[in-house]
Amino acid sequence: SKNYKIAVLPGDGIGPEVTNESVKILKVIGEAFQYNFQFDYGVMGAEAIYQTGNPLPEETLELCKNSDAVLFGAIGDPAFDNNPDAKVRPEQGLLKLRKELGLFANIRPIKTFASLVKKSPLKREIVEGTDIQIYRELISGIYFGEKFTEENGDYAYDVCKYSKEEITGIAHLAFQDAQKRKKKLTLIDKANVLDTSRLWRKIVKEIALEYPDVKVDFMFVDNAAMQMILNPKQFDVILTENMFGDIISDEASVIGGSIGLLPSASIGIDNALFEPIHGSYPQAKGKGIANPIASILSAAMMLDHLELTQAANKLRESVENAIESRYVTIDLNPDINYSTSEVGDFIADYI
Amino acid sequence: SKNYKIAVLPGDGIGPEVTNESVKILKVIGEAFQYNFQFDYGVMGAEAIYQTGNPLPEETLELCKNSDAVLFGAIGDPAFDNNPDAKVRPEQGLLKLRKELGLFANIRPIKTFASLVKKSPLKREIVEGTDIQIYRELISGIYFGEKFTEENGDYAYDVCKYSKEEITGIAHLAFQDAQKRKKKLTLIDKANVLDTSRLWRKIVKEIALEYPDVKVDFMFVDNAAMQMILNPKQFDVILTENMFGDIISDEASVIGGSIGLLPSASIGIDNALFEPIHGSYPQAKGKGIANPIASILSAAMMLDHLELTQAANKLRESVENAIESRYVTIDLNPDINYSTSEVGDFIADYI
Ligand SMILES: CC(C)[C@H](C(=O)O)[C@@H](O)C(=O)O
Ligand SMILES: CC(C)[C@H](C(=O)O)[C@@H](O)C(=O)O
Repeated sequence: SKNYKIAVLPGDGIGPEVTNESVKILKVIGEAFQYNFQFDYGVMGAEAIYQTGNPLPEETLELCKNSDAVLFGAIGDPAFDNNPDAKVRPEQGLLKLRKELGLFANIRPIKTFASLVKKSPLKREIVEGTDIQIYRELISGIYFGEKFTEENGDYAYDVCKYSKEEITGIAHLAFQDAQKRKKKLTLIDKANVLDTSRLWRKIVKEIALEYPDVKVDFMFVDNAAMQMILNPKQFDVILTENMFGDIISDEASVIGGSIGLLPSASIGIDNALFEPIHGSYPQAKGKGIANPIASILSAAMMLDHLELTQAANKLRESVENAIESRYVTIDLNPDINYSTSEVGDFIADYI
Repeated sequence: SKNYKIAVLPGDGIGPEVTNESVKILKVIGEAFQYNFQFDYGVMGAEAIYQTGNPLPEETLELCKNSDAVLFGAIGDPAFDNNPDAKVRPEQGLLKLRKELGLFANIRPIKTFASLVKKSPLKREIVEGTDIQIYRELISGIYFGEKFTEENGDYAYDVCKYSKEEITGIAHLAFQDAQKRKKKLTLIDKANVLDTSRLWRKIVKEIALEYPDVKVDFMFVDNAAMQMILNPKQFDVILTENMFGDIISDEASVIGGSIGLLPSASIGIDNALFEPIHGSYPQAKGKGIANPIASILSAAMMLDHLELTQAANKLRESVENAIESRYVTIDLNPDINYSTSEVGDFIADYI
């Protein structure tokens, strides 16, 4: 049977706890389906800064480059957030990793689970049945453009830059996915103000000609931020640039009732990384209360990516079973309140 | 009695209809309170492009510069949005006007009306009692930084730039307002990624020392986009840069149940402009269904700014009376369904 090299980067905060559950379950899957998973661990983020001074040590980067997939936990530490003068930051590790691995497309599915809709801050009739796939460009835009701070702190700037190739790559992925789904794609931009947005709009219009079965919509980001709450079901595939994608996808994460459920995949030509969309949630670290499902569903996206579709489906089925059985952590059910590893065990046992 | 020169720019779409109601009511207020309002009309936006080729004709700009306040309707026209190659756009008129008048602070109050909370897409217990004041920087950032599109369309860029002075000006306004309110200020930024955000954070921390009674919070914009929906009542005064303010304030506009209720003020040293936060809503143009309340409450903010506080309070009272009497347009009550001018008349009659 084929060998799969999985680089595991638990990262900061609750990252290690939730990633643990995913690895535990992947091992069970490996046995059940006869896949050979090889797990190699690397340090990254605040953890790596404390250990090595570098948020992405060279070995970790090499490990990831030589892997078939990267399973990543979370990044971030309040000690750095509260210090604007810190020269080295955990997030730099993640940004550098995305760039070095060429992970140009961040894919975030936003779906509701029937039994959890009541946890949503939005009304049931608005969110029930939402099924959105967000494609966020991940290695360009204002995140990676030139930055500068004048030494007296008199001014600073950040450049948002996009090239035709950068837009084209992710646009094709998004259109192809739309063809397999409800055949609707919405480009979110600010084309009434930004040159980069006008470039996005122009290129997406050209590419749309190659996908005549997909209906294309254009929406300004401010309006999109409203529409996401007023009527999320109007969206099928969303395509957007890096910063708008960061904001809109986090906003959309409230729809289902818990950000602890939402996975993501970051895809490049030669590499791929899978991570929960929640952050490091430092307040919960070490308490055994973190919801492992976002990480576990990220592992399911990883299985899809490795074309282990049967296992991916089985794993998703097991997660749904846990949710429907209310075998969940405190964020989803304060009365029952299973621990992170109890939920992981329950999902593993089902497989 | 003192003379007040009001420049009226009805603009595009439903702008003229809703602005009409505000002017009608201001005339009634002028008589009732013995204020001398002088209304001078100017063209702007798509309307101005059609008439003169220029979205902000020189006369309109002069009119505004020489006014005590500008009452503005709305801007935007689908004919331009759908044409990425258009060289002249309606929005340029508004952006130029903001810049030329030095309107550095855009203030957007987000409040709920008890009888309308049921119209919110969010659950009652989450939104009821929300009272937020958003301070958005309005004449710098990525809106006004250098822009460039390579002639073959191979790449484009937009520069986000901030100076210490630009941040300082609006920060003081926001802190002063926080002192009069619940003494809490949240800076929304992306300081884990952007140099400009780190500059904002640094300067706001310094300024905070001058307002020791105000509690200051820092929140990343992606998290803020979630928190605005999960728990809007945690916010009192929000301070943020131009683009984040555009997105977050439009998102926040869904809380109360209708964007047709929300006013805004844009303040400079020598000038001030008042406008509803809704756009030109071209589908509703000329149908007499547009909700005039956002424009009317913008006129109330104008009265506050002119220090005609008694009249401002009376006008707000009259608007509340109309809402509680369900004397409202179709967006708020499909069963009763009063026209734009009927609602305006009802509010005027109360005064
Ligand atoms: C941690 C941060 C740099 C990151 C981002 O902004 O991309 C995070 O918010 C995300 O969305 O993965
Ligand atoms: C019309 C547009 C340029 C404008 C902006 O982005 O500032 C609008 O969305 C607003 O918020 O007033």
